[in-house]
Amino acid sequence: SPARAWCQAAAQKLPGGIGSKLCDLLPALDGDMKTMTFLQEVVDILLAYITESFDRETKVIDFHYPNELLQRNNWELQDEPETLDDILISCRATLKYAIKTAHPRYFNQLSTGLDMVGLAADWLTSTANTNMFTYEVAPVFVLLEYVTLKKMREIIGWEDGRGDGIFSPGGAISNMYAMLLARFKMFPEVKEKGMSSVPRLAAFTSEHSHFSIKKGAAALGIGTESVICIKADESGKMIPADLERKILEAKQKGFVPFFVSATAGTTVYGAFDPLIAISDICKKYQVWFHVDGAWGGSLIMSRMHKWKLDGVERANSVTWNPHKMMAVPLQCSALLVREEGLMQNCNQMHACYLFQQDKHYDLSYDTGDKALQCGRHVDIFKLWLMWRAKGTIGFEAQIDKCLELSEYLYNKIKDREGYEMVFNGKPQHTNVCFWYLPPGIRYLEDKEEKKKRLHKVAPVIKARMMEYGTTMVSYQPQGDKVNFFRMVISNPAATFEDIDFLIEEIERLGQDL
Amino acid sequence: SPARAWCQAAAQKLPGGIGSKLCDLLPALDGDMKTMTFLQEVVDILLAYITESFDRETKVIDFHYPNELLQRNNWELQDEPETLDDILISCRATLKYAIKTAHPRYFNQLSTGLDMVGLAADWLTSTANTNMFTYEVAPVFVLLEYVTLKKMREIIGWEDGRGDGIFSPGGAISNMYAMLLARFKMFPEVKEKGMSSVPRLAAFTSEHSHFSIKKGAAALGIGTESVICIKADESGKMIPADLERKILEAKQKGFVPFFVSATAGTTVYGAFDPLIAISDICKKYQVWFHVDGAWGGSLIMSRMHKWKLDGVERANSVTWNPHKMMAVPLQCSALLVREEGLMQNCNQMHACYLFQQDKHYDLSYDTGDKALQCGRHVDIFKLWLMWRAKGTIGFEAQIDKCLELSEYLYNKIKDREGYEMVFNGKPQHTNVCFWYLPPGIRYLEDKEEKKKRLHKVAPVIKARMMEYGTTMVSYQPQGDKVNFFRMVISNPAATFEDIDFLIEEIERLGQDL
Repeated sequence: SPARAWCQAAAQKLPGGIGSKLCDLLPALDGDMKTMTFLQEVVDILLAYITESFDRETKVIDFHYPNELLQRNNWELQDEPETLDDILISCRATLKYAIKTAHPRYFNQLSTGLDMVGLAADWLTSTANTNMFTYEVAPVFVLLEYVTLKKMREIIGWEDGRGDGIFSPGGAISNMYAMLLARFKMFPEVKEKGMSSVPRLAAFTSEHSHFSIKKGAAALGIGTESVICIKADESGKMIPADLERKILEAKQKGFVPFFVSATAGTTVYGAFDPLIAISDICKKYQVWFHVDGAWGGSLIMSRMHKWKLDGVERANSVTWNPHKMMAVPLQCSALLVREEGLMQNCNQMHACYLFQQDKHYDLSYDTGDKALQCGRHVDIFKLWLMWRAKGTIGFEAQIDKCLELSEYLYNKIKDREGYEMVFNGKPQHTNVCFWYLPPGIRYLEDKEEKKKRLHKVAPVIKARMMEYGTTMVSYQPQGDKVNFFRMVISNPAATFEDIDFLIEEIERLGQDL
Repeated sequence: SPARAWCQAAAQKLPGGIGSKLCDLLPALDGDMKTMTFLQEVVDILLAYITESFDRETKVIDFHYPNELLQRNNWELQDEPETLDDILISCRATLKYAIKTAHPRYFNQLSTGLDMVGLAADWLTSTANTNMFTYEVAPVFVLLEYVTLKKMREIIGWEDGRGDGIFSPGGAISNMYAMLLARFKMFPEVKEKGMSSVPRLAAFTSEHSHFSIKKGAAALGIGTESVICIKADESGKMIPADLERKILEAKQKGFVPFFVSATAGTTVYGAFDPLIAISDICKKYQVWFHVDGAWGGSLIMSRMHKWKLDGVERANSVTWNPHKMMAVPLQCSALLVREEGLMQNCNQMHACYLFQQDKHYDLSYDTGDKALQCGRHVDIFKLWLMWRAKGTIGFEAQIDKCLELSEYLYNKIKDREGYEMVFNGKPQHTNVCFWYLPPGIRYLEDKEEKKKRLHKVAPVIKARMMEYGTTMVSYQPQGDKVNFFRMVISNPAATFEDIDFLIEEIERLGQDL
């Protein structure tokens, strides 16, 4: 390619490196060769990092405490420019201390792994450096968002893929959009007149749901006390009978139920709320039915697992984060909305400097005014390009594989000495929640003492994992349950051997506790 | 570098191209060579695109109407995977129809240009593929956000750079955060109890301010009618006397004034509200003083222009978007907050799966719970790396240069035949607002007819610009003013010759109208 040719020519001409001043980079007149050399150097650093990240011999993290890390490098911002050599050194230092989120033994979050086509797409997105507000400034990306949202709605089961939607900066914001739409649908005057024109509202979600529902209610002026927690069963699923009881209770107290958020794949247990039963209740009481499938929504791509989302087609809105179980690079979160036009009516402000009505093209492609954001990052291209590269069946295979791994883990530890499962039965998602009881705790008779000591086990093992840098997995308490490990698998790079390794590592690091 | 060596070796071994199946890419066992080759091919496409984008012989856009663009390529998503060759073809097609936002003659938005160090940093960010919620998963990026926010607060003029802040997905969300904080500061019970526990609130902003203030008020349950528009003078600056009068009026009507948003650099005129006078009024009536410097905040980096922001140091919160006037790749928007701890108190929900309190490091670096988002994209690294590469003086030079260009444009057209300025006097930012009157309209006596025909001039010239692809500039009506051009300059690649070109092009394309 011509760019590569320039780059090589430049490299030959500049054997002393590229430590020249910034003004020699593009847009300078003769900046192209130096620019290509500089960018190629950065790419080489990145390619080396990628290969390293997938290598099990590499540490997941080279951990240092914040104050220590602050001192290990000069991170300060100065008046004077640095050389490009210094910039390359900063890039290397940044990656040296970064978490290798692509590492096959990094299990710490719901978003792990690094897809190569997704990465390439994100590099292209950065290079295109535009904004989603109008067709005028993002013609291709606006079309790809249109095509992809339609496809996702088809998969949800909405007729002909009809409906609306948007890619938003994360699941919390997608859920907030849903709540905003539900309120506006019931009380459109709230947009102009605010909550003082509206009766006291009540939203419902299970006690295992994501904290963003409460966060959204606080932000929207609804208040966290108006988010009523519905009981979950032992495996973390919402109990529909409790939902109906709480709706009736709220109505009796003068609240107006306006929003139910069912979770498809809870954060900790990976539980799927019974969507059909919940949708029946929503229909009966005419309440907006939202499905928070940020984590579990992707299972609808799998013919083997999609039954867990049965009823999602009845939802008024669905949150679905391809950056989690589909391993699309961060961030990529979709909100899908059944009713067309509602988002536009809810959020539009008709800014005349952006959404001119006398433009020469079809204005329905100027999607910016349905967003809460003004500028909106292009999150669509990485999902779209990955979808092209894998096909729907590729995503399915990837999801099925992760679920197979988690079933393997579950089968491996459910009867193993020293392990206790946090809830019974095969997990529905890749979440496997368990306690590891070191030998010194395993046989304690005093139940309170045992609990107290067990509570401290996971944090210590986790701290040791990070210091050794061998693996990372999350832990937490929940309700009256002391700290347990929450294993999740979303990284297509993980294998059965990595699961074995995790268990060995927990035992190695925890044996003396 | 080793990555390059692999890449070259791979290229030699695979003369037939890289059209193999996806499963051969990393994380496959032997995926590294093919992966490096594939990524290098994409990089070559991107490098060629970059060089092309800065070339004035290239079109800014290869424009097609939405339906036409949909048909020019197969954009559909399928069940089956495509080959990597097809993926490369899709990358090329996407860039072919994209807007070249780096092009020196692209003046369409407040965010233009493409900084090479910023781009490299964004590529690194994508490769690191992590999330800002905790130090645990983003140690370096969390520290860099800390360092950079402190530096920005120092520049604002807050003692020792003390205070708080966050990078958010765009200026609209930053402004919404400010409003949320102002409400919580005055009525902390709103978080739990919602707006029903709070008297009717009133927010104030100038009629020239950004629409996100109203959008935020609608979302937060305050309502757009509670956003009271303050008159602006002829040049677009808020009139402080009108602010005081409207505050008193609102109080008499039983509203509680809680938030004033002054604008430093309005979207259309680039006007700077008189911050000192406004802050005095805010102090007198004990109202939160927010400065929306999304567009104009960066002028504080310039010793020549910072006086326009005098008084910003008195603000309770400041929105400042480095992705606009500092040409950092999209998105990069900061909200700076004077009071420490307030964001945390306002937004925290203590999710125990993420913000475990028994972690082994200093928890003040787990900044995620102050955000409305749960996952948060890493927007900091590109700003930080550019700052290192340019130094503060480099940003200053870049900003000064853009302002010099806009002064050149203003001087060129203010007395030129066929031009009328939308407001008198030298613009304070790079916004130059003007009408071009083609000869056929220039001498019309009938004022109404003249206005009516003038209104149609800018849209037609703009459409022709896009069809020829030679340049792009925004237009709009405002109040009773018919469509005018709003020129803005934020691209460091632009030169005096590009300004000359724009004027010639407007005249060439508009002469017959």
